[in-house]
Amino acid sequence: MTTTDVHTADSAQDAIEERLIRNVIQSFDNCENPRLKYLMQALVRHTHAFIREVRLTESEWNTAISFLTQVGHITDDRRQEFILLSDVLGASMQTINVNNEAYGDATEATVFGPFFVDDAPRIDNGGDIAGGAPGQPCWVEGTVRDTDGAPIPNARIEVWEADEDGFYDVQYGDDRVTGRAHLFSDAEGGFRFWGLTPTPYPIPHDGPVGRMLEATGRSPMRASHLHFMVSAPGQRTLVTHIFVRGDELLASDTVFGVKESLVKDFVAQEPGTPAPDGRELNGASWARARFDIVLAPDH
Amino acid sequence: MTTTDVHTADSAQDAIEERLIRNVIQSFDNCENPRLKYLMQALVRHTHAFIREVRLTESEWNTAISFLTQVGHITDDRRQEFILLSDVLGASMQTINVNNEAYGDATEATVFGPFFVDDAPRIDNGGDIAGGAPGQPCWVEGTVRDTDGAPIPNARIEVWEADEDGFYDVQYGDDRVTGRAHLFSDAEGGFRFWGLTPTPYPIPHDGPVGRMLEATGRSPMRASHLHFMVSAPGQRTLVTHIFVRGDELLASDTVFGVKESLVKDFVAQEPGTPAPDGRELNGASWARARFDIVLAPDH
Repeated sequence: MTTTDVHTADSAQDAIEERLIRNVIQSFDNCENPRLKYLMQALVRHTHAFIREVRLTESEWNTAISFLTQVGHITDDRRQEFILLSDVLGASMQTINVNNEAYGDATEATVFGPFFVDDAPRIDNGGDIAGGAPGQPCWVEGTVRDTDGAPIPNARIEVWEADEDGFYDVQYGDDRVTGRAHLFSDAEGGFRFWGLTPTPYPIPHDGPVGRMLEATGRSPMRASHLHFMVSAPGQRTLVTHIFVRGDELLASDTVFGVKESLVKDFVAQEPGTPAPDGRELNGASWARARFDIVLAPDH
Repeated sequence: MTTTDVHTADSAQDAIEERLIRNVIQSFDNCENPRLKYLMQALVRHTHAFIREVRLTESEWNTAISFLTQVGHITDDRRQEFILLSDVLGASMQTINVNNEAYGDATEATVFGPFFVDDAPRIDNGGDIAGGAPGQPCWVEGTVRDTDGAPIPNARIEVWEADEDGFYDVQYGDDRVTGRAHLFSDAEGGFRFWGLTPTPYPIPHDGPVGRMLEATGRSPMRASHLHFMVSAPGQRTLVTHIFVRGDELLASDTVFGVKESLVKDFVAQEPGTPAPDGRELNGASWARARFDIVLAPDH
């Protein structure tokens, strides 16, 4: 890709616009970090190609500055509107794609999202991540293996999800820790835990990103999902979700996170069906899902 | 420009990356405002082309999110770090180029900058914009004409500049109003005022944009300049500067604002040289400059 992708009807005007691009690119010539230099020069090329192609008006430029200012001002320790913006433009998902190229039958990655927190509680295999969050109990089980099919014991499995009201614990603004935990795969690579059957929810849409979605006729809804981050020595860390087969939002997930291989059967269980671990469910309905994870080697 | 500008070595990987771009573009298909739809879809194409071309790492994506967050948090009513960012990437200047295509001998435009304020005081022709700001007195005069050469009387001329310490009034954090004013051209299109001989100064570089400049080996310095905004009915509003011939920063202005046609002679006057308007300069040195302005028609 060159700096001459865009042409106006006027070659003198083109020359002015292209000269500016060359000047800006050259301004980074003294950058001592070659990767940073390349990134900045590429950013300049693509940014200027956009401005030139769309013939950005000064009013539109002002709107963009104002929009970014609003995104900056609503962002704080609890809310990351820049990540939301990246997510709804598919930029987060594309970054995931670029960094997780397909490797054998390794499980596909998807977006990280803004709601992971370090230091979620540890549970034993078979424990409950809900911590009292409302929702239908869901038994999730599977294995962690490498691309040769060998079980990976002691893999660290972080799981987190929204409750049935569509909120993660951190969105309540108190100090509750619910709907998240970490556990470790057993000697055969197996894992199992109680969570909640995922339900759809909107991304936070009372800010500038929500207003952008509304202005462009887009929905803020995410397809129902349960987050995983799985790590083990020598393996590429996997950040992914599993989605619920049959969810009508699968085709319009607002952050473009859905991949067919990550859509799983969440099998509804009649009230009274015995739980795999003998848990007493007091006549409540529950569900179960299976997720077999394959980690790519880390190289 | 298509979505297939970038290719990896792996066509299956290309297919994944290109499918995502199509999905994101399609998500804007219901946008009722055709210009907004076009802008968002083009933004998606160029943003994804950048991510794919540079193979942006997740660590780099995190750095970008953190950088934008810092830019957002330092931005307030007095400081606009997003404009600075746009300026040092040449994006502001390219937007100016796109919106001020060459028209006859109309005076060239340059960047607006973050330091204009509405409601600067009015002065009469021949008045002083300095308002007590420190610096060498400078007599500036010229005419405002249209591209047919006809004088434009009563054009509104806004002028603003930094003092010799490199600061605009608004940067002091008190309520002073110095180094800025507006006046109107006379019946022959003429204007004249006392200002300060422009001196070089750095853009505010104690924030994230300054750190980016330092990390990339760039200087934060702007070439010496005096800002103008000139408007008149039926004419395209001109936002520009004049620069000082001989300034060693002309070739490396950090916001890429310099155009050769805007470089003017600021002629140093020996102490004791009589001022054009008879002003008593008490033996101080002073300078004078001429700027003849041509406005393009507004259509």
